[in-house]
Amino acid sequence: MPDYSIGVDLGGTNLKAAAISADGAMLERLNANTELTQGPERVVDDIVRAIESLRGRCSGRRLAGVGIGVPGFIRMSEGIIVGSNNLPPLDGYPIRDAVEKRLGTPVMLENDANAAALGEKWMGAGRNVDDLVLLTLGTGIGGGIISRGRVLHGHVGMAGELGHVSVVPNGNPCGCGNRGCLEKHASATAIESMANLLALGSQLSAKDVYDLAVKGDERARLIFVTMGQALGAALAMLINIFNFPLYLMSGGVLAAWDYFYPALEAEVRWRSFTYRNAETRIDKAILGNDAGIYGAAYLPLQALRSATE
Amino acid sequence: MPDYSIGVDLGGTNLKAAAISADGAMLERLNANTELTQGPERVVDDIVRAIESLRGRCSGRRLAGVGIGVPGFIRMSEGIIVGSNNLPPLDGYPIRDAVEKRLGTPVMLENDANAAALGEKWMGAGRNVDDLVLLTLGTGIGGGIISRGRVLHGHVGMAGELGHVSVVPNGNPCGCGNRGCLEKHASATAIESMANLLALGSQLSAKDVYDLAVKGDERARLIFVTMGQALGAALAMLINIFNFPLYLMSGGVLAAWDYFYPALEAEVRWRSFTYRNAETRIDKAILGNDAGIYGAAYLPLQALRSATE
Repeated sequence: MPDYSIGVDLGGTNLKAAAISADGAMLERLNANTELTQGPERVVDDIVRAIESLRGRCSGRRLAGVGIGVPGFIRMSEGIIVGSNNLPPLDGYPIRDAVEKRLGTPVMLENDANAAALGEKWMGAGRNVDDLVLLTLGTGIGGGIISRGRVLHGHVGMAGELGHVSVVPNGNPCGCGNRGCLEKHASATAIESMANLLALGSQLSAKDVYDLAVKGDERARLIFVTMGQALGAALAMLINIFNFPLYLMSGGVLAAWDYFYPALEAEVRWRSFTYRNAETRIDKAILGNDAGIYGAAYLPLQALRSATE
Repeated sequence: MPDYSIGVDLGGTNLKAAAISADGAMLERLNANTELTQGPERVVDDIVRAIESLRGRCSGRRLAGVGIGVPGFIRMSEGIIVGSNNLPPLDGYPIRDAVEKRLGTPVMLENDANAAALGEKWMGAGRNVDDLVLLTLGTGIGGGIISRGRVLHGHVGMAGELGHVSVVPNGNPCGCGNRGCLEKHASATAIESMANLLALGSQLSAKDVYDLAVKGDERARLIFVTMGQALGAALAMLINIFNFPLYLMSGGVLAAWDYFYPALEAEVRWRSFTYRNAETRIDKAILGNDAGIYGAAYLPLQALRSATE
């Protein structure tokens, strides 16, 4: 029986990988740059080199397989990335098969937010539940849905695009074609945009806005209240739809929790009968930037377990 | 191996029940009144009598069990109805156990819209898919989510309250405490309310508004466009969340399909990247008022099948 797995988290500028034991212990890890400009073959080289390095350090153990979390939509059956803003050179490239062929071990591809949700379910804040939703709050907002212990993929693997739930029907325009998407009203980018609209300062980062809020700036605090209400409206819908026991959020903007959570919770409370009547926890994810690696590593382990069930 | 099952659809004023074979053939059926005002014991009597009657007509066959679809939230683990507007005398009453004790056969309780969704999956418009969403358009709007072939229940059984997805954040108030719920903008009741706001006539039913639309009344047609856009906004969100292959609608108001569907489809198209990029079907359910009976009957059969898998 294989006793460890390798998870890879492929971002726009770097690559994180780790060997994780079947019971969830971090065995080995490494970070590397990805040379996207050099084309997909170079990215595959980088991934394969990272995995080979980790495998070398785990000699004596038996590898279950490799999971790779990537930003963007994934066509699950084909193992290709489509429509990734962060990895355009990989768009449509058969990355799963390319890595698998080089390694001779099973490779599974997963959307990064889905992988993070699965990681939180396996070893993080969701380890005691079978059903949860994760919102990843960053420059955009990603989502992952875990239902009956597994990632909910939908038809072709595009489920869980929770950043594109519309919370303001005719709100800010979004690159997806819709208006008022959650990620245009509650992401770090949205916070920066609101700071600009309020003329709080030029080129302020979400962190700058947070620092102003800490210092007592009322306009900066209003931004987090606005962001909290948008998140609350989206969460109320998700709670009414799923009635799951747990809704998690992750990302650097969680530092501002005390400034947005009260508005978020108030919004959820009045908008969701289910929230008021069924035990529902809204909380911070706990694995931070490692959630995606844990989830990616769990993919081949979970596949093995369900095959032997 | 049991070869048939009995499904019951319990409404506010009547009770429909049918014996259905394990391969989905309608064997026997009956309709009866329910005497809600006489209290829960009387309702249990009516249900038991209907089931005994059907069982008598199916002698020689082996019964898998009984499924009962009811309006309202269900606490699945306890088998009780909570918060049903249509069956207040049954609120909190242990109806599942009461019927089971009298019959000596397994009884399963399910929300009526969930049962209808399962019925459509088993023998209706969704028989070729594993994942679908059903919206039941009536005086209110109910929802049922079928994921991996099964009803998605959530934590305590309250999942799928799709009539309470907010499509107009500060829109019409709803009894659930929220504002702008889908069912306050797209149900038959909402159509009647819009007709009243437009002074189309006094006490017009949704059917009356439809008849006016057919005759070319522009204001009546605007009502269906408005309703279609509200449904489209909700469906776009559901498609972005689930990426399921099939979204069904049922209810008498489907007669007005040609008047609301173009607006619905246009709304979904611009709001959902997933709709534009992954094959997605939005269609009419086909089992009509029988969907709930089919789904209820399927519950014990599905439980048996998964137990022997």
